Amino acid sequence: MDELIPDLNEDFLERGQEIYLRHLSVDCVIFGFHENELKVLLLKWKDDGPWCLPGGFVLKEDSLEQSATRILKQRTGLDNIFLQQFHVFSDPGREKKKELFRYAPKGGWMMERFISIGFYALVEFSKVSPQADMFSEDCRWWDVDSVPKMVFDHNEIFQRALQELRMSLNDHPIGYELLPSKFTMPELQKLYETILAKLLDRRNFQKKMLALGILERLKERKMGGAHKAPYLYKFNKARYDKALKTGLRGGF
Amino acid sequence: MDELIPDLNEDFLERGQEIYLRHLSVDCVIFGFHENELKVLLLKWKDDGPWCLPGGFVLKEDSLEQSATRILKQRTGLDNIFLQQFHVFSDPGREKKKELFRYAPKGGWMMERFISIGFYALVEFSKVSPQADMFSEDCRWWDVDSVPKMVFDHNEIFQRALQELRMSLNDHPIGYELLPSKFTMPELQKLYETILAKLLDRRNFQKKMLALGILERLKERKMGGAHKAPYLYKFNKARYDKALKTGLRGGF
Repeated sequence: MDELIPDLNEDFLERGQEIYLRHLSVDCVIFGFHENELKVLLLKWKDDGPWCLPGGFVLKEDSLEQSATRILKQRTGLDNIFLQQFHVFSDPGREKKKELFRYAPKGGWMMERFISIGFYALVEFSKVSPQADMFSEDCRWWDVDSVPKMVFDHNEIFQRALQELRMSLNDHPIGYELLPSKFTMPELQKLYETILAKLLDRRNFQKKMLALGILERLKERKMGGAHKAPYLYKFNKARYDKALKTGLRGGF
Repeated sequence: MDELIPDLNEDFLERGQEIYLRHLSVDCVIFGFHENELKVLLLKWKDDGPWCLPGGFVLKEDSLEQSATRILKQRTGLDNIFLQQFHVFSDPGREKKKELFRYAPKGGWMMERFISIGFYALVEFSKVSPQADMFSEDCRWWDVDSVPKMVFDHNEIFQRALQELRMSLNDHPIGYELLPSKFTMPELQKLYETILAKLLDRRNFQKKMLALGILERLKERKMGGAHKAPYLYKFNKARYDKALKTGLRGGF
């Protein structure tokens, strides 16, 4: 038999168990940020099927992170995306009406039970070229507050990702992948406001952000605006990376 | 063939794939707290094998949470333990020297690659009766700062659990399962100091804890000490549960 090429020919519906670990899938909640909008990338199954999260399977020789990276590359064209494992979804009833997936042979590996590892990713969405997969007829960005009803438990996976992303702001830095390398405090604030879906007080925000110790103020200012030129900042990458691992506050 | 009883007879080494999902294991980092000591419960493989974390497999009809609960019940005798999924370990090289596990037939399902879902649990360790499993000759508590070298990546899983537990204190309440229903501020502080492995300032701690809004001060005081009787507190369970889900600080 020919060798299967991951994700690229329909043979894998019948023979996927030759190259993938059974029972395991990866679902990706790809958040896109651009000009103060937060979006999520969704696929639509062919033949007017339901919307779903981009996802895929775990190659026998890969880690989950390698698998998620492969899937993201296929859907967005991007490498080096910030990726975060956030929860495993394993309710035995999570794939209700799985028989609606009419492309997989009955009794095959695809119709077995799957446990899905959720990852979220953050990308600058102007850099992305959304790519449908072979089972999808559409792939596009949706506003996070008006996503359609999706298949299985994908709405729950999406909501959990959004909750985890928002929670992560309490104790982790954000923005390195989403902002230009030099940015103003108002630009950073807009990013937070967009993710949190609420307005923040300018002075408190600046005070909190500076107290975290992950920003460096540059000598140059941003030119070109009508108002007084605002200071430019950049992230101190070493402190930013440390805070990703250990948290921002030190808490107690 | 006889029906397999989960985890209770050695047949499952050869026939486990009849009842368990392949490639999936659960490893539990069981933290015990008692009289200002933080411990972790470990097993030792028979025939002077290595130490390891208590773990097990996922029944075909169970969620991961049900599986972790079953495994914890077997090792500790306890139900209703606070359990937290914290990370999935999937490095393809994570089970180095797996052939050292001499009880499993070569070529059987146990020798295939496993991806392990890490859970941590918090228990009052005086309530626990540690129980070895059928492959273990010892099961006991270790100080968290002197755990032995363990099999596979279990030291990494343990360290990650400890890091996640400590991080969780920055934004999540703790103590409901570990303290008596009425407790003093010094008792709560001791719990935090033990988990964080550092001393905290009494006044700052009290101020921070009260500001979180999850404690209720009772009218009664604790009797019997040599000093002025300290106030007793209890958790406001509704706010405590909400903070478990949404975080303590509200952040921005």
